[in-house]
Amino acid sequence: MSGKLFVIGLGPGSPAQATPEALSAVADSAFFYGYGPYLDRLDLRQDQTRVASDNREELFRARAALEKAASGAAVAVVSGGDPGVFAMAAAVCEAIEAGPPAWRNIELVIVPGVTAMLAVAARAGAPLGHDFCAISLSDNLKPWELIERRLTLAAEAGFVIALYNPISKARPWQLGRALELLAEKLPPKTPVIFGRAAGRPDERITVFELATAEASRADMATCVIIGSTETRLIERPGRAPLVYSPRFSRGASA
Amino acid sequence: MSGKLFVIGLGPGSPAQATPEALSAVADSAFFYGYGPYLDRLDLRQDQTRVASDNREELFRARAALEKAASGAAVAVVSGGDPGVFAMAAAVCEAIEAGPPAWRNIELVIVPGVTAMLAVAARAGAPLGHDFCAISLSDNLKPWELIERRLTLAAEAGFVIALYNPISKARPWQLGRALELLAEKLPPKTPVIFGRAAGRPDERITVFELATAEASRADMATCVIIGSTETRLIERPGRAPLVYSPRFSRGASA
Repeated sequence: MSGKLFVIGLGPGSPAQATPEALSAVADSAFFYGYGPYLDRLDLRQDQTRVASDNREELFRARAALEKAASGAAVAVVSGGDPGVFAMAAAVCEAIEAGPPAWRNIELVIVPGVTAMLAVAARAGAPLGHDFCAISLSDNLKPWELIERRLTLAAEAGFVIALYNPISKARPWQLGRALELLAEKLPPKTPVIFGRAAGRPDERITVFELATAEASRADMATCVIIGSTETRLIERPGRAPLVYSPRFSRGASA
Repeated sequence: MSGKLFVIGLGPGSPAQATPEALSAVADSAFFYGYGPYLDRLDLRQDQTRVASDNREELFRARAALEKAASGAAVAVVSGGDPGVFAMAAAVCEAIEAGPPAWRNIELVIVPGVTAMLAVAARAGAPLGHDFCAISLSDNLKPWELIERRLTLAAEAGFVIALYNPISKARPWQLGRALELLAEKLPPKTPVIFGRAAGRPDERITVFELATAEASRADMATCVIIGSTETRLIERPGRAPLVYSPRFSRGASA
């Protein structure tokens, strides 16, 4: 007997940014595995069961969900944003690869969502309008030297850079170091966006210049977008400035 | 008098992947500017007007929409996927920067959507599960040398690479050259995903190895995802293989 496992992206937080496909997968599931605050967003029925876990427990959570699905149940693993971007889809795949053969028979449905950098970019203008990259600053899964190398190569390539997991209690200095390193490669006035809780009531989108951006202004719910040498700022009287990266490039890069 | 301009991302194509926020922006708009096939997805009322244009006319279309909004109308510019990723949001910002001061007073609302690489990744597993970049292969807005430089640096950085606009009648050889260049930097068995029309009835997701991937199998509606050295394939009896990039990295890169 093998059940079904949905890996669902709920989008950045506003119910208006969750897709009908995600809601339909929620309606079709009986057991819900996820980080508590994501499960809190769901409006579950009496016959649906939530199994909350801490946000450092991805692989354990993936295994528990797969085991439940293998027993024949309809199970959902719930992520904020998109499940494929620094979230649960990769953890579920890792668990399947290392797990019993029966887990490969489970019907796996991954439901994409609006990931944080897209929601933040939309609020700020079009900072991702040209080639870009996404890097997680979490160094418990990769060596910090590799993160520095990627930041350096990304700046050399002229990519706009979106940083996920920029800061936390366990990760206090990494964002500051990343900004410092990029400030050596990019002009001081390069726009930097700190986008917190985009689309939620406590949303805060702030634009800094790279030379004076302070890491301490970010928190766990912040996605940081650092412009390329071509990213521009449009001042608007009485409105927040627009930050955008032109679709064309003259070929200049850092 | 200044109106309102929505720049709306409809998602990859399935109505189940368009957000309620996008549908609500459509309901609130009177005039719709966009590439014909995107406008065809809308179910407009009698009192709503569509202004279709060719897909090479981004800046012209953005100006026309801004002019209409400046006259006091509620206007929508419609994109597939996310409007901030190689789509209309940057063109609208460019037009605002170069246009009359009145255009800066228009209320601009950018509505994010599920961009193609997320929809394709979800169908294939979790290929974007680790650091990644997105590059447009369109060389009418930047020199081809810059694209080659970015592909090279991205491979050196160990990024998974999503390619947008990989091929068209006006752009016949670029994808082949990009795959050839990456094959010099990455192992021959690196998984390559050609994701066509993800979420639509004519969806086709195919996984190749880099050494034997044929550019001619892609078309305009294809998003190509090229793994990093760490991207893995999980075979599943009776099901399509899963492609994923582990969350952890040993620090090995090309």
